[in-house]
Amino acid sequence: MIEVPEVSVAVSPSYKVYVEAGILSKLAPSISEKRIALITDDVVGPLYASLLENTLQEAGKDVAVYTVPNGEDSKSMACFESLLRKLMVDGFDRKSAVVALGGGVIGDLAGYVAASFMRGIAVYQCPTSLLAMVDASVGGKTGINIPEGKNLVGAFWQPKAVFIDVDVFASLPERQFKQGAAELFKHGLLADQSILESINSKEFAPQGDRAFLSDIVARSIKVKADVVAQDEREAGIRAHLNLGHTLAHGIEAWSDHRVPHGEAVTYGLLFVAYLAKNRGYADVIESVKAFLDYVQPEPLGLTDLAPLLAFMKRDKKHEGGTQRWVLLKEVGQACIVEDVSLGELELAWQQLQNDIS
Amino acid sequence: MIEVPEVSVAVSPSYKVYVEAGILSKLAPSISEKRIALITDDVVGPLYASLLENTLQEAGKDVAVYTVPNGEDSKSMACFESLLRKLMVDGFDRKSAVVALGGGVIGDLAGYVAASFMRGIAVYQCPTSLLAMVDASVGGKTGINIPEGKNLVGAFWQPKAVFIDVDVFASLPERQFKQGAAELFKHGLLADQSILESINSKEFAPQGDRAFLSDIVARSIKVKADVVAQDEREAGIRAHLNLGHTLAHGIEAWSDHRVPHGEAVTYGLLFVAYLAKNRGYADVIESVKAFLDYVQPEPLGLTDLAPLLAFMKRDKKHEGGTQRWVLLKEVGQACIVEDVSLGELELAWQQLQNDIS
Repeated sequence: MIEVPEVSVAVSPSYKVYVEAGILSKLAPSISEKRIALITDDVVGPLYASLLENTLQEAGKDVAVYTVPNGEDSKSMACFESLLRKLMVDGFDRKSAVVALGGGVIGDLAGYVAASFMRGIAVYQCPTSLLAMVDASVGGKTGINIPEGKNLVGAFWQPKAVFIDVDVFASLPERQFKQGAAELFKHGLLADQSILESINSKEFAPQGDRAFLSDIVARSIKVKADVVAQDEREAGIRAHLNLGHTLAHGIEAWSDHRVPHGEAVTYGLLFVAYLAKNRGYADVIESVKAFLDYVQPEPLGLTDLAPLLAFMKRDKKHEGGTQRWVLLKEVGQACIVEDVSLGELELAWQQLQNDIS
Repeated sequence: MIEVPEVSVAVSPSYKVYVEAGILSKLAPSISEKRIALITDDVVGPLYASLLENTLQEAGKDVAVYTVPNGEDSKSMACFESLLRKLMVDGFDRKSAVVALGGGVIGDLAGYVAASFMRGIAVYQCPTSLLAMVDASVGGKTGINIPEGKNLVGAFWQPKAVFIDVDVFASLPERQFKQGAAELFKHGLLADQSILESINSKEFAPQGDRAFLSDIVARSIKVKADVVAQDEREAGIRAHLNLGHTLAHGIEAWSDHRVPHGEAVTYGLLFVAYLAKNRGYADVIESVKAFLDYVQPEPLGLTDLAPLLAFMKRDKKHEGGTQRWVLLKEVGQACIVEDVSLGELELAWQQLQNDIS
């Protein structure tokens, strides 16, 4: 028997998340690779790809731009394979880098392409939606969908750096902005009361003050970075980031993604707020209801909880037959609960129904 | 700007490689997961899958067996996707494990499935070819092929343990055994003179003494484990393991894999032996020629080096325009050389041609 020794390389060296208006035209000095595959989509690409391409080319880099259709359908095995083959045909090698320019779909897809090409090359993330900025910038999750479910195929693959330019909000529709607001609100509940207050400011809008927006985005990312740093592979407290997501994943799957992620999370946050309150834990009902009023999510059109429970059982965070819920003991203190009864779920569901009907 | 801190998790915890006749029927206590996806092929599966399945079931585990066609064609994106979808449909989750039973193709494919399913689940490797035992047991390389080249898509994903049962040689064809002998011989050249001597023993054969075979396999794996432990992500001395592989990859690609890996490596080892000797480095010509006589590789049917050079340029180890060669300074001491001239390559090629024609 041979003992193959532990290799003392850290899974993820530290990296920087730059949050700054105008950073997209100033990022070249932070990218060390010479050959760059810029992956974007056909909505974001026409707006910002040439800006980024010019910046990189002026710094002496070779850039090729790959544009996929906007939307979740591009997180497919076919699109993944197609990009990998194009990179190979175009002569990219293990010293090249991927730059991902777009929302969560592009970050996940391009990140997974980078993780997989020749068993892994460098990736830089340039998220352009608020959701991708506050959710996907930290944690290294990449992946694609299969017909059996979302994000079921992928890798943990850390970026070398993340560049967040709040100037791109100028082109972000209000409704998409609100998708990200849900994660931001969640980070506030988990760890930073000041985020909850900032969301009520009139500057919290796509056209709001750049310094204000940079600041709140940075504070939200800091919450996630602190959690992830303690628990990279989701064994423990990283699960707290799933606050509101258990029901949300059920809603997304049941509605076939008619209800977008941030709106599903908003419902999910109200649901767990009731679960918590009914147990005598935190009472954040009024705060979450006010947030729900701001988001104005897509109506559910569902009175029965059972269909959601069925979809939740198929979620990849559903392990070994136990459904785990993240509940707030109080603002800033989450816990994992495994003994939530069907009766509790149905009561919280009725309370949620009363609020949204 | 937020600094996302380094995460101090080692990339690969240590794991054990068990080399023991009969281990396939004794491995259950070393596997902690309850739900097992046993991935094998239609040549190895009929011989050993039920043995393994019974062993695991007797230990109280749930086992599902997935059988793919034998051969390189199964290292495809289609097969990868199909397995991932089946695992999902069959209810596997993040606490399940994959057991890979087969040669290098199965180890690479099943390893990559495990690396990718829900962003990574446990994998145990049971290599059944000598090549997979001595080459793929250590290093965590997994991957599949795309039409543009072999192993261009994949991940580094360490097994939780490796189980090597030399009893399976009973069913391994002599020619396949020799494919693995080439890597074993290479490990001898790199670090362990005693391996070179053992290969000349009459016991070095599929029907040879079990203890003898277990010992030489274990010594060969030890060589690789020592190198990989020093350099997990192939930045430095791990490249020494590519001794003989630069030309071999060219031969494999040019011949569309008509010349199998181990035979291509045998040619490659003779080629770099000449490159080294011509520079006044190690002279291992006689030893490599004797090994070539033992292997009796597929005739090349090629007198011109140029086609191989063209294919070598597309290899993923060909970085940034420079072709790097691994040469022996002496037995047990390799080095990387980047300034090998076309004239040196052509001279070594002529010398090789004289030996094999």
